Amino acid sequence: MEKNEIKQLTANQAAGAKLASRKLALLANDQKNKILAAIASVLKKQASEILFQNEIDVEAAKEAKLSEALIDRLTLNENRIEEMIRGVMEVASLEDPIGTIIADWTVPAGMQIQKIRVPLGTICMIYESRPNVTIDATALCLKSGNAVILKGGSEAINTNHALVHAILPAAKEAGLPDGAIQFIGTTDREAVLDLIKLDNLIDLVIARGGEEMVRFIRQNSIVPVLAHGKGLCHTYIDKSAQIDMATKISINAKCQRPGVCNAMETLLVHKDIAQKFLPIVCGLYAKAGTQIRGCEITKKIVPQVIEATEEDWSSEYLDNIISIKVVESIDEAIHHINKYGSGHSEAIITDDKEAAQKFLKEVDAAAVFHNASTRLHDGWVFGFGSELGISTQKLHARGTMGIKEITTTKYIVYGSGQVR
Amino acid sequence: MEKNEIKQLTANQAAGAKLASRKLALLANDQKNKILAAIASVLKKQASEILFQNEIDVEAAKEAKLSEALIDRLTLNENRIEEMIRGVMEVASLEDPIGTIIADWTVPAGMQIQKIRVPLGTICMIYESRPNVTIDATALCLKSGNAVILKGGSEAINTNHALVHAILPAAKEAGLPDGAIQFIGTTDREAVLDLIKLDNLIDLVIARGGEEMVRFIRQNSIVPVLAHGKGLCHTYIDKSAQIDMATKISINAKCQRPGVCNAMETLLVHKDIAQKFLPIVCGLYAKAGTQIRGCEITKKIVPQVIEATEEDWSSEYLDNIISIKVVESIDEAIHHINKYGSGHSEAIITDDKEAAQKFLKEVDAAAVFHNASTRLHDGWVFGFGSELGISTQKLHARGTMGIKEITTTKYIVYGSGQVR
Repeated sequence: MEKNEIKQLTANQAAGAKLASRKLALLANDQKNKILAAIASVLKKQASEILFQNEIDVEAAKEAKLSEALIDRLTLNENRIEEMIRGVMEVASLEDPIGTIIADWTVPAGMQIQKIRVPLGTICMIYESRPNVTIDATALCLKSGNAVILKGGSEAINTNHALVHAILPAAKEAGLPDGAIQFIGTTDREAVLDLIKLDNLIDLVIARGGEEMVRFIRQNSIVPVLAHGKGLCHTYIDKSAQIDMATKISINAKCQRPGVCNAMETLLVHKDIAQKFLPIVCGLYAKAGTQIRGCEITKKIVPQVIEATEEDWSSEYLDNIISIKVVESIDEAIHHINKYGSGHSEAIITDDKEAAQKFLKEVDAAAVFHNASTRLHDGWVFGFGSELGISTQKLHARGTMGIKEITTTKYIVYGSGQVR
Repeated sequence: MEKNEIKQLTANQAAGAKLASRKLALLANDQKNKILAAIASVLKKQASEILFQNEIDVEAAKEAKLSEALIDRLTLNENRIEEMIRGVMEVASLEDPIGTIIADWTVPAGMQIQKIRVPLGTICMIYESRPNVTIDATALCLKSGNAVILKGGSEAINTNHALVHAILPAAKEAGLPDGAIQFIGTTDREAVLDLIKLDNLIDLVIARGGEEMVRFIRQNSIVPVLAHGKGLCHTYIDKSAQIDMATKISINAKCQRPGVCNAMETLLVHKDIAQKFLPIVCGLYAKAGTQIRGCEITKKIVPQVIEATEEDWSSEYLDNIISIKVVESIDEAIHHINKYGSGHSEAIITDDKEAAQKFLKEVDAAAVFHNASTRLHDGWVFGFGSELGISTQKLHARGTMGIKEITTTKYIVYGSGQVR
């Protein structure tokens, strides 16, 4: 397609979504749940066609020699389709956030004011590789009364196409307003640039993907963006930590799934516990095949480690690599985290309640943990049902983003003739 | 100053604010109130010096033939200084939002999770003419534990300079961390462009001024922006409205202060009440010197009105001008508002509860009023104390913005060794 054709098509789809959003905002919870049930049911029925299309994408990805990690994220199987279906049903079972009265008061002038929760309108989801996002995002947007525009990665185009074309007729039959789910079928990157300029039609762009993609969208979007940002997470082992707990959490936070945003990248260790703790934890890291890059003091205690450079403190490895630094004090640990961290998830391991309080208060991050693994920063673990990602920004949504984060509010004022 | 010098100076000031914000976040409410009291007290003492500097600005504005309205907003007098002082004390008396526990629950894994309110960090206020914003914004930022960077309009430079240099020493003596209030002393517009690119140092830009200035900041800022946007507000007179109430509110919403964002620009009138209502309200508008631009039907009923053009429906006059349209139905009124309105403040006047509910539900705006004037959309009226402006965007803050709107949240997780 020509650039102009793409622009026109994209704008038409966004306009269709905007129009549908007015109707979606008024749907009753029962109606929305009926649509979600229809989506879940048709995914089950059409699983084999979806898996067939997914194989085409996976074969192409293998031929293009894309990374193992990406191919893993791209690949569907019956289990993963089951998970999607469970996710849709889970979203259906959530309380309808729309119409909730958040505050209700009467002012001296005699008017009653209510602050109520309403949908944002039209949400554009821009994401990479994982096809489950197509279904997760659709379910969360519909439940919260928003229209959704789906722009997935080109590597998953056949799978995403199959998913959307499976659910669309079923959802429509169950009462979905026309145009409420828009699928951007072109793999041309131009379409992304077009979408993020449509601030009169799109209320929110959610960017979920690699650092480069997210930065590009942040810098070029006129539409407000919520970004699933990078996670450069730390665990600080205080001098009053229990060695067993510190070891278990340090291994879990790094090794359980190193490629995700809430995995730990840097371990900070108080100097008074380093001599005892580091040989134990480094031994276990070595067993787990983790590459260790340590500061000078770490290297003195465990000579086998590679020497860390300044660059290591600001690296999100997303890999089975850890950097370790011995610190003089809890203040140095907090300072290091606030300087190098990405404001995602940070943990302190200690039995000293005062030290814990200081850390929880002074560390500037979306989630701070006392005696628990940063890997637990997750919508499912927190009890929010599905999640749209984890926001490292401070405005509107911070930390794990669920259904409430794609709503806004509205003041409703009941008067009896008041003027100013 | 050279461009590079301005850039360096601006970046240094922002870095100073960032550093101070870490300390501000930890200040106790008593300490913050002590600082605010010191500010209030010194403003009283130095009123005459402030008024002297203000006269210099006002004289210059008159010589430059700036508009009457702007000169009015720029001018201080003893009353207005008293108002500023009352504002500071009012902010001091507000409950400290920082540290408030918004949610508190325990998850099946056994961890206790708290969502608590924390400051945003560093807030950059970019505004025009009204010098009271210098003090209002400073008070709200300090109370909420944020550092503030003040960039006022060049027309108010001497007044703002005098205000900041009055309060700074007093606030410091009362315990304000060094660097917590930064005043951009240059009137070079280059400084604005520099500020809105400092996303690693500034957490939020608040833009409060003319439409052009706000649009420039929105389109060029990498830092998230909250904008005090334009207000194209409507009042819809339903067929079941009481004529008296409809008249009183229609006159108030347009004429009480036509130059502000929550004033009405377009009056929509149901066809069944137009014959009776329009002659009365148009007579009163004529008395008030309001220019009336009506649709074809309005002109048939009240021949004296000027004929409205398509452009009128999307005009924020900010002046003593009104456009009037007769509509076939409440649906046409809602459609007109959702098409032309700016999502600010919208009102329906009716005794029909069903019609009211339909309007309140289907109109997409920050605040919708039943039987009250749009002029009442205001932080003071709503009981929030001071306000930072009225947001017409949907993310983070919608409608009148008070102290909570310049905070964010943080999850605090208490574990006992949990891993994933």
